[in-house]
Amino acid sequence: MAKIKSVKFKLNRFEYVKPFHITNNISYETQNIEVILELENGVVGYGEASPSFRVNGEKISALMGFENAVQEMIVGMDVREYRKIFDITDSLKGVPSIKAAVQYAVLDAFSEEIGVPVYQILGGAKREIETDYTVSIGTIEERLEDVKKIISQGHRVIKIKVGENLEEDIQAILAIHEVSKGCKYIVDANTGYTPKQAVRFVTEVYRAGVDISVFEQPVAITDIDGLKYVRWNSPFPVAADESARTKYDVLRLIKEEAVDYINIKLMKSGISDALAIVEIAKAANIRLMLGCMAESSLGVNQSVHFALGTGAFDFHDLDSSLMLKEPNFRGKYKISLPFYSV
Amino acid sequence: MAKIKSVKFKLNRFEYVKPFHITNNISYETQNIEVILELENGVVGYGEASPSFRVNGEKISALMGFENAVQEMIVGMDVREYRKIFDITDSLKGVPSIKAAVQYAVLDAFSEEIGVPVYQILGGAKREIETDYTVSIGTIEERLEDVKKIISQGHRVIKIKVGENLEEDIQAILAIHEVSKGCKYIVDANTGYTPKQAVRFVTEVYRAGVDISVFEQPVAITDIDGLKYVRWNSPFPVAADESARTKYDVLRLIKEEAVDYINIKLMKSGISDALAIVEIAKAANIRLMLGCMAESSLGVNQSVHFALGTGAFDFHDLDSSLMLKEPNFRGKYKISLPFYSV
Repeated sequence: MAKIKSVKFKLNRFEYVKPFHITNNISYETQNIEVILELENGVVGYGEASPSFRVNGEKISALMGFENAVQEMIVGMDVREYRKIFDITDSLKGVPSIKAAVQYAVLDAFSEEIGVPVYQILGGAKREIETDYTVSIGTIEERLEDVKKIISQGHRVIKIKVGENLEEDIQAILAIHEVSKGCKYIVDANTGYTPKQAVRFVTEVYRAGVDISVFEQPVAITDIDGLKYVRWNSPFPVAADESARTKYDVLRLIKEEAVDYINIKLMKSGISDALAIVEIAKAANIRLMLGCMAESSLGVNQSVHFALGTGAFDFHDLDSSLMLKEPNFRGKYKISLPFYSV
Repeated sequence: MAKIKSVKFKLNRFEYVKPFHITNNISYETQNIEVILELENGVVGYGEASPSFRVNGEKISALMGFENAVQEMIVGMDVREYRKIFDITDSLKGVPSIKAAVQYAVLDAFSEEIGVPVYQILGGAKREIETDYTVSIGTIEERLEDVKKIISQGHRVIKIKVGENLEEDIQAILAIHEVSKGCKYIVDANTGYTPKQAVRFVTEVYRAGVDISVFEQPVAITDIDGLKYVRWNSPFPVAADESARTKYDVLRLIKEEAVDYINIKLMKSGISDALAIVEIAKAANIRLMLGCMAESSLGVNQSVHFALGTGAFDFHDLDSSLMLKEPNFRGKYKISLPFYSV
């Protein structure tokens, strides 16, 4: 028996090492919720929710108010019946970051209970993954300085934020390419372009001889036709991120043939929908990357084990904890940049 | 470390208690392959392949010839990396029953290695499931005799084989209904009808006031348009069985909106595709039942743990071992008809 005795929420605040700028948003700090799940036998499992108002509509102050609801849902249940707990916590659809943290805390407690790491429970497909590192929006000079630093830290996959200024973005990509030959690029517009701007962006970049590995979320969240237009007019693979939160979103994107890639984030989908999206995407020959919100090492740990277990991802954009000031490293994984491993 | 030292195939023959008659096929015995997977540390995992020529195109004599190929694929791999082994054994697409048995033997060995039952590794969603029992094709008198015996054994879900003679099938359903009020019916035509015959069948049965819980595979394997026609002209849920072998089949059926139900069988899909189909179907709001070929208790064990772990099935058609003469019970589950439990 491995019954849940208590579930507690703890608010943790982390400052960014430097402000993080994406389309229409600059972050100086993040407030995350640590989920502490204790079993009757004393075993403890941990999870972390890193909410997003922009993507999920979540506000940290409101999330704390879910502590009681989660307790009522799952206290007394056995972590050995984790799929049953997943089914019940699927009702946390309005607060997917909480769903993710609670579901992962269940897996973490199950893992501690049976002495098998989470990545092995999920299938143990890999022992090591490579993370990218993100260049946020800034002047070309600022971006170039970031890129040089990122490369010097060992990264070979660079994520570049664009979407606020088409002409400047194109110039920035070309300038970055000059100082980072051999690197791969994931370019993320975070919904910032119109479909035609997005096509213009990829066309210009392509003509300049720069290759983009994944072009993420060029257009507005609900503009599925726009996403499809960009997909079929882009020489580079196009990904849905903000448009792909639940497994239902992903099935619809597949039916509409709107994307080449899905960016799964546990904070958008929880563990249950993320597992479903992996299977759905593979059956549809859609490729996968794994992203993050502003998780600390406690939250990135969740994605590392998910990625290692399923082995489903071409790219891992799990750099958030590297950007935060953290008093203690909380991950059950090792870091040797650009690699995370067990 | 839990590395695979050896994989061996063993041919087992089982006689049916009485001949089993479905559309265009009468079985007197079955030959199954036991897969014995031993780890370097002495732990042993078991699986069973129950091949089907009619559904999968498999012949037992040819299947035995895959022993070496499977050894070359997975000896030396660690069962703790089971998803990696699943990915590799997905190449056994021409012999899905072997794929299922090998993949399950890996899970079984992993389970023994870590001391956690397979159903808990898969999520532990249920502790008990109910199996139906099947009435094969025969005269109305034979069918009625079977039904009475089945009910006396405690079964409340009756699977009825039809598809060879439309008029006789309708009469048989109505006669069976008279002696089995309160029971649920799964009716399986095993591809025996044309689309119009299938619609005539359900229309007549419906007008006579009989309810069918699932109407399985009315039409030919490749007639997806026919399946869709029956679906939208049937008052009862329509299922694909023979038409739904791989996850790719299922995604297509969903895109075509061709069915209400999928009958998953591990022998058609292996564990890997079966897991994928569960997730795909749930995302598409397609309901699920779990069926079998001619597995002995060793093979039914696989489906019992799969069903308990995922908790995904409305109906469990896992009666094959109940129909076979077996020297020893090999399941890691308990039977108290109509229930299987852990």
